[in-house]
Formats: sequence, C-alpha cells, structure tokens
Amino acid sequence: MDTMGRHIIAELWDCNPEKLNDMEYVERLFVDAALQAGAEVREVAFHKFAPHGVSGVVIISESHLTIHSFPEHGYASVDVFTCGDRIDPAIAAHYIADGLDAKIRENVEIPRGMGPVEVPAATVQHVN
Amino acid sequence: MDTMGRHIIAELWDCNPEKLNDMEYVERLFVDAALQAGAEVREVAFHKFAPHGVSGVVIISESHLTIHSFPEHGYASVDVFTCGDRIDPAIAAHYIADGLDAKIRENVEIPRGMGPVEVPAATVQHVN
Repeated sequence: MDTMGRHIIAELWDCNPEKLNDMEYVERLFVDAALQAGAEVREVAFHKFAPHGVSGVVIISESHLTIHSFPEHGYASVDVFTCGDRIDPAIAAHYIADGLDAKIRENVEIPRGMGPVEVPAATVQHVN
Repeated sequence: MDTMGRHIIAELWDCNPEKLNDMEYVERLFVDAALQAGAEVREVAFHKFAPHGVSGVVIISESHLTIHSFPEHGYASVDVFTCGDRIDPAIAAHYIADGLDAKIRENVEIPRGMGPVEVPAATVQHVN
C-alpha cells in the first residue's frame, strides 16, 4: 500500500454541548462519518470522562478518526486521517461538524507519508 | 478542563520493518510510551492488516497516541496528542521513534484548542 495520506485537523467551536457529552451519539456519528466517506471500520473505542467529555477513535482500513470533546467549552478537537486516494477525509470531517452543530470550523489538511511535511494555511468557516 | 493541547505529528522513515509489522510489539511500545510520559491509559485498540501493517490507538486521559505502519516502506505515521500542560508529548514521541529504530524523524507540533491554528515549521532529525 502506498504511504500517501491526508490528515484533516478540525478545530470545532461553538458546538452543541449536549451532543458533545453524549458518548453513544458521538460514537454513532463517527462510525457513520467513516461509512459516509466510504471507509471500512475496523475498531471502535470510546471513553466517557467524568464530569464531562468524550474521547474516542474509529480505526478504519484507511487510518483513523478521533475526537476529544469539551462540552463545557463547546469545543471538539477532531482528526480525520485517510491513507490512499480512494477516500476523501473532507466528507467525514464535514459530516462530523454538521452532526455536532459546530458554528466555527477551522480545518487544516496535512499531507502524510509524502516526505517533508508542508502545512497549508487553515481554512475557517463560520456556520449560522 | 482547559482545551489547550499539543499535537505532535511524527513522520518516521527508515524504521525497522520487522518491528513495524509486529502488532504486539507496537502495542506494548505505545502503552509504554504513554506511561513514560506520565499519561493515564484508558483504551487500547490495535489492528493487524494483511499482508502487512499495523494500525492502533491508545486513548489516554489526556487525549491519544496513534500509529499507522507501512513495513514495506519502513514508514510509520505517528500522532501524539496531549491535552493540558501536565504531560509532554515529545517524551512519548521520542520513545516511540527510538523503539521503532527510526533513522529519519520529522516532527511538527500543532497547538490545539487555542483558537486559530498556527503551525510552526517541521523539525527533521537524522539518527544514525
């Protein structure tokens, strides 16, 4: 398999705090996001923190999706990393941001496995 | 909990292919790396691909460590993401790179949860 990958770092602000704190919802959202992008789900591991917050990962054949949520700040740090050129990580990242009602979405796409890392500028989207 | 986090993107080249393909070794290495950095391990999920390659994640109280290995290319894409300022992700990243005998190590540290993402230049280290 080629090492080429695309890694989207998504900083999601002004999200729905209840959704950020609902582990079952977040887990289902992430599995659905992977499937929407056409990925093959291999492992799923989520953890609920006390008093609030969810961390989790979906390992796909094409790499992974992760989240760490901070309901008290309306913030989630999300990563969508896909190897190869068959899957578009932006589809999953967009699906997740929509599912968390994120009003401010900052995305940076980092090329992986292609030699020296060159990071383009972030894109910021405000959604009303 | 504060949203502040440090996310190290590590591109490891010229690694030991046998270690990259040994799931039990990689899983133990990642758990040990988390513990070395003083993190608290919450979930561990690894997957072995056919004919080769390992993907896995260690979810820690302070975020996560992930790997996708390509033994046939001597390459591993590693992420070490820690929230808060108690844990230094560089300790875990260094431990992992050493454990995989990586001769070329390119690291980028991305600030997370701190507003607009500003990505510094990568550091590249050649180890003989």
